[in-house]
Amino acid sequence: MVYALHLNGPLQPRGRWKADECSIGRALDVVGTRSALLILREAFYGTARFDDFVERAGVSQPVAAARLRELVMNGLLERVTYQEPGQRARRGYRLTEKGAGLLPALTALMQWGDRWLAPAGGPLAILHRECGEPVQAELRCSAGHRPEIGELELAQGPGSLTESP
Amino acid sequence: MVYALHLNGPLQPRGRWKADECSIGRALDVVGTRSALLILREAFYGTARFDDFVERAGVSQPVAAARLRELVMNGLLERVTYQEPGQRARRGYRLTEKGAGLLPALTALMQWGDRWLAPAGGPLAILHRECGEPVQAELRCSAGHRPEIGELELAQGPGSLTESP
Repeated sequence: MVYALHLNGPLQPRGRWKADECSIGRALDVVGTRSALLILREAFYGTARFDDFVERAGVSQPVAAARLRELVMNGLLERVTYQEPGQRARRGYRLTEKGAGLLPALTALMQWGDRWLAPAGGPLAILHRECGEPVQAELRCSAGHRPEIGELELAQGPGSLTESP
Repeated sequence: MVYALHLNGPLQPRGRWKADECSIGRALDVVGTRSALLILREAFYGTARFDDFVERAGVSQPVAAARLRELVMNGLLERVTYQEPGQRARRGYRLTEKGAGLLPALTALMQWGDRWLAPAGGPLAILHRECGEPVQAELRCSAGHRPEIGELELAQGPGSLTESP
């Protein structure tokens, strides 16, 4: 079974173009480290304080500081001051709309890990609160179909591709 | 607007557990580098030969060799011998079912990059061949709803969580 995507006519032969400006590459320029993605995971799981990011993402203080700074600089997290009842005001971090837009990618990684790396099932599940059903990241086309990989095609988008020398 | 997930009762307070065994963390142990994800992207885009992975993923030969070895060892790619008409047999790599299972995660990264990092639109698009419509990775529950982040809940799964000291 071959799992590669079909290449749309203008993308053939494959040797003629490079995906340098591909949005996957651009996304990985911003979140292409394990530590960045673990810190984003923790933000989705309700972590806000620096010390909690360090402990829960399992990274060193300098790594957490560098990643949090980059994620703020790139607009995925924002610094906030918050106050819990009876406690003093604290500085922390929370997801922006841009950062929150990565939930489908993290959900897809979770379900892949559940399927392939967690024989007893994963320790956490994402549910739709209203109906209690588990939530998955799934591939759908705008017409509502759920294509298999063999039914997918890679085509040129509006942005420009790099020609290969 | 707060973009964190609601925590299901047993997951409160947040300080009591750690997501050490979370399937996102496990997945990132396998594909938590920019170079691994770019090599997988190239495999989906039809790249098979070592030299082509080096050039198209834009990584050095030692990095490509290390990542390809790890991806084969972890069962995401497999080594194959293939022969194009009129050419000699060549050794290459192709995605396994396990590796191909990461397409929703890569598609989600692509659409996030298209949305937030590519003002003119991305250079590539994934289409459903049969109907020609663009394909997206979207969050759906088993009942078919498309919940917003605020309607999602993080709950315990079948695997066990680490208790925080």
